[in-house]
Amino acid sequence: MAVLRLGYAHIRVTDLEESKKYYTETVGLLPVLEADGKVYFKGWQEQDHHSLVIEQGGVGVAKFGFKTNRVEDLEEIERKAQLFGVSTSRMSKGENPEVSDGLRIIIPSGHTIEVYYEQTFLGSSIGLINPDVFPRGLKGMGVPRLDHALIGADDATLTEKFFMDVFNFFQVERVVPDLDHPEHTLASWLATGNRGHDIAILGGPGFDTKLHHFAFQVDDWSSILHAGQIMSMDNVSVDVGPTQHGVTRGKTIYFFDPSGNRNEVFADGYTTQRDYRPILWTADQLGKGIFYINRTLVDSFTTVLT
Amino acid sequence: MAVLRLGYAHIRVTDLEESKKYYTETVGLLPVLEADGKVYFKGWQEQDHHSLVIEQGGVGVAKFGFKTNRVEDLEEIERKAQLFGVSTSRMSKGENPEVSDGLRIIIPSGHTIEVYYEQTFLGSSIGLINPDVFPRGLKGMGVPRLDHALIGADDATLTEKFFMDVFNFFQVERVVPDLDHPEHTLASWLATGNRGHDIAILGGPGFDTKLHHFAFQVDDWSSILHAGQIMSMDNVSVDVGPTQHGVTRGKTIYFFDPSGNRNEVFADGYTTQRDYRPILWTADQLGKGIFYINRTLVDSFTTVLT
Amino acid sequence: MAVLRLGYAHIRVTDLEESKKYYTETVGLLPVLEADGKVYFKGWQEQDHHSLVIEQGGVGVAKFGFKTNRVEDLEEIERKAQLFGVSTSRMSKGENPEVSDGLRIIIPSGHTIEVYYEQTFLGSSIGLINPDVFPRGLKGMGVPRLDHALIGADDATLTEKFFMDVFNFFQVERVVPDLDHPEHTLASWLATGNRGHDIAILGGPGFDTKLHHFAFQVDDWSSILHAGQIMSMDNVSVDVGPTQHGVTRGKTIYFFDPSGNRNEVFADGYTTQRDYRPILWTADQLGKGIFYINRTLVDSFTTVLT
Amino acid sequence: MAVLRLGYAHIRVTDLEESKKYYTETVGLLPVLEADGKVYFKGWQEQDHHSLVIEQGGVGVAKFGFKTNRVEDLEEIERKAQLFGVSTSRMSKGENPEVSDGLRIIIPSGHTIEVYYEQTFLGSSIGLINPDVFPRGLKGMGVPRLDHALIGADDATLTEKFFMDVFNFFQVERVVPDLDHPEHTLASWLATGNRGHDIAILGGPGFDTKLHHFAFQVDDWSSILHAGQIMSMDNVSVDVGPTQHGVTRGKTIYFFDPSGNRNEVFADGYTTQRDYRPILWTADQLGKGIFYINRTLVDSFTTVLT
Repeated sequence: MAVLRLGYAHIRVTDLEESKKYYTETVGLLPVLEADGKVYFKGWQEQDHHSLVIEQGGVGVAKFGFKTNRVEDLEEIERKAQLFGVSTSRMSKGENPEVSDGLRIIIPSGHTIEVYYEQTFLGSSIGLINPDVFPRGLKGMGVPRLDHALIGADDATLTEKFFMDVFNFFQVERVVPDLDHPEHTLASWLATGNRGHDIAILGGPGFDTKLHHFAFQVDDWSSILHAGQIMSMDNVSVDVGPTQHGVTRGKTIYFFDPSGNRNEVFADGYTTQRDYRPILWTADQLGKGIFYINRTLVDSFTTVLT
Repeated sequence: MAVLRLGYAHIRVTDLEESKKYYTETVGLLPVLEADGKVYFKGWQEQDHHSLVIEQGGVGVAKFGFKTNRVEDLEEIERKAQLFGVSTSRMSKGENPEVSDGLRIIIPSGHTIEVYYEQTFLGSSIGLINPDVFPRGLKGMGVPRLDHALIGADDATLTEKFFMDVFNFFQVERVVPDLDHPEHTLASWLATGNRGHDIAILGGPGFDTKLHHFAFQVDDWSSILHAGQIMSMDNVSVDVGPTQHGVTRGKTIYFFDPSGNRNEVFADGYTTQRDYRPILWTADQLGKGIFYINRTLVDSFTTVLT
Repeated sequence: MAVLRLGYAHIRVTDLEESKKYYTETVGLLPVLEADGKVYFKGWQEQDHHSLVIEQGGVGVAKFGFKTNRVEDLEEIERKAQLFGVSTSRMSKGENPEVSDGLRIIIPSGHTIEVYYEQTFLGSSIGLINPDVFPRGLKGMGVPRLDHALIGADDATLTEKFFMDVFNFFQVERVVPDLDHPEHTLASWLATGNRGHDIAILGGPGFDTKLHHFAFQVDDWSSILHAGQIMSMDNVSVDVGPTQHGVTRGKTIYFFDPSGNRNEVFADGYTTQRDYRPILWTADQLGKGIFYINRTLVDSFTTVLT
Repeated sequence: MAVLRLGYAHIRVTDLEESKKYYTETVGLLPVLEADGKVYFKGWQEQDHHSLVIEQGGVGVAKFGFKTNRVEDLEEIERKAQLFGVSTSRMSKGENPEVSDGLRIIIPSGHTIEVYYEQTFLGSSIGLINPDVFPRGLKGMGVPRLDHALIGADDATLTEKFFMDVFNFFQVERVVPDLDHPEHTLASWLATGNRGHDIAILGGPGFDTKLHHFAFQVDDWSSILHAGQIMSMDNVSVDVGPTQHGVTRGKTIYFFDPSGNRNEVFADGYTTQRDYRPILWTADQLGKGIFYINRTLVDSFTTVLT
């Protein structure tokens, strides 16, 4: 059994048209469907139907989708989730357009997660036969794919445990109060494969159900700069960056969509391995862990969630 | 069950001292053990004891090690290998220094592969607590880790099938004669996770047991340039590059160690996914697939194996 | 007195329409005028009317334009040219569209060089008020500006002397047969400011009047890769690269326009200074000097001129 | 006549030993002389004896040196300076170790500038014969050369005029209150060649004699990241960055030496030309001009000078 990845983020926006324009022209996603007050997007590298859904009304995250590779995984996850003690229900094919049947789980942090094993195949923009390395005519940042999300949690330790026990994620890096209390998780980066992290959790009072950010992978440090240049041209509100994370070693810019949902462009980061021992960050070094170069935690970064 | 990665390459070299100097000073690996006419190396990012072994005498590959995460995987792989019809035997802890017990398999291409579940933990050079993003004082290219290998095979189709059936690898990209004969594999890139490929196979007459190259991951296109600069300073024989692959989109330089074994520095490449449909390259586009920028296959590249 | 830079290259092409498409869509220059069987182009960063002229008929270079800053410079250059012993004549405003009056000089290598002090101001594509760092919607490589040219010469030593004596250029780097014969120039890179080189000369029998290449400056090593990707997509014939030069330390790809004229994208290179002592390359190290990484001179590179 | 470049910055530091260590180990300059309570440094690319002098006692700038190419330039500059109405005096060879005789000028902003035409030749670290592209074993950021300085001035307009009238610098970019008052300079970037800027001036009350920063050129955006990583490892106080400037398009990090003098690593920036029309920034767009990506002026940036 393996959860393959974060398959989609479904978020709320205050103005659908404005957000559609932003995610299309500035972020460079491809809109693939508009229906029922929602717009569905995919990155040019992605083969599945969509990886981002925006929905009119408010801010924050409505739900996340995690994809498994096999229908059989649903039962195993369901069983483990119930054993863990969280609420699960079955969802039917078509409850989400172009998405298979699956599970719906309310995880300890209160977020809704859908687990599914199939989306309609749309294919990447470069095709499957003798492809070019990118498609001509990308817009804005031209992000290729959704990478990960960071969610808030009142109890980060418990939420981390959920992803490990039920999704079989492993710890990559963790923030702990100090080395005498390594069992208490302040923040955690968890992966299922080699991609740095697929989900991260930030603990804090009142953080349940909150979204800190979701991130798009871009190629490298030069792509990060290019994304930043587009932010300036399109007057995007930039939170922090360009900089590098100490945690994951990824290069990054944080910025906000027109509704105030935090986005990230994320590049590189080291190749994670399930058998590597996790890295620990102590709370006093959190600044360096999050923003390696200036080692200073911007206030907004740990307090502004949507 | 999952094979985690290519854990080590064990190769032959004509002059141990010269090669030790090369892999230490030029490639920038860390020598961790010298015993019985062999030198063992690890990359600074790697936590396990070693990922490269060089042995005095000849050229080419002696064997590869693939790591699984759990002792239980050995039995499953053994069963699948026997079902596939290849020869397997058990190896004992200590047959390879600091490596657990495991399996030894002669795969269809005649290569020896060892499957193991544990190496002695040495840790990365940046430690596990509040680490820096790289260690000061790296030598030469300062490569962080072993990434993958490309092996020769008289029957690439069969060898590919082995890695899929027995190791549960999935196809990422393949070269086929033409679109009418997609079932015939000329070359194949196979992955177990998100790292582009963990093993690749190049078909050709007399290619059985041969090594085409093994590759070290470096950060990005700038690291590729830096590696190339070191090659010039240290008078390394360069085969091809810097350039980008069409296959995997990785950035690359191929070069030779002092014995003539081909090395690669490899950066980026897209994030592979088990559920993505594989990309097909037709033989007439192989030049573009291998060397995307000039679309010309250097003769030596498909004929020189060790 | 100072010659500011190589202002324009005026070259011959075998098919005007095909070449216009190439320089517009692939190289990413902006066509600004089409008249009398010629197309005029500028880079997006350039303020003057044009920096490239293509003319129907043959291959190779028709002439180069070098710009000075002041009308008074013409007299001084004329005087020095006559003292040097080359043929000069006056050209009138309008002989070249949108170009001031000036001088026309046949230099020792037989090339025609026009010296002028003014072109019609068109302005860069990002404007002069609160500009963005690049204009949206660039095509292909999107090169910002013409940088330099390399010309052939039967007598490189004499041609080098011309640029030093008449244009007040200084030597940046030179290739000499060996250190015992430093007075004999095999190849020379000459600058007027800090841009690595504004003109370079390659000596060889029958090289008089020949063009080796002209180069467009791009931002950095990542821009070089991007240019190479475009070459692949547009099926451009690539000569050598991506690689780095030992001479100038510039990053580079050489490639051919549809008529076979060699182009270069060139990035970085160190900041040259008039008071720096020139660097010498001995003929036996020419491979390293030209192509630093693999230290191998491609035959075509020193023999194919147009 | 031409001033070639900013030749040296001579600054005050509170602790000579600590600063020597910082400029050697962290910035990566080469200490070449220690005498009379001062330490002299050069960058590895520079051929002259030194480009930075640190002196025990206080903070801020003691003086700058600008180099001309010819002894004859001194007289012309002296004449122009006197015509401009600033105080000049002659300095003798040896007043500064390894520096020729020259002029000493108190410019309108109260800074002392020395003009000289020669320093003892030490040569770059890669030599003049068949050089490598960089020397092995560089420390810290390994900066190749001093690039420019930004000085404070109560009257930026007048100080700008000095550099134009006396040094023959040209305007590259300027900040003006608004487009109705383009004659009033709030800040100015002035160049003598193609290097973006050689001196910049920031106007403000009480800014006379103050240093805003001096900058070292590094290769590119990747070098900027590397410099930032070193800052983190060596616990350097970072002011702003990594980011890109709108003005000059240079990539940058601002940071502080142990005494609080602001340093910058600066890469790229476009190729400036004497005949280009200068770019104007209006005061309301200053944030975008200075820090292009987030368009936000950090308070400290316009108020902290030493």
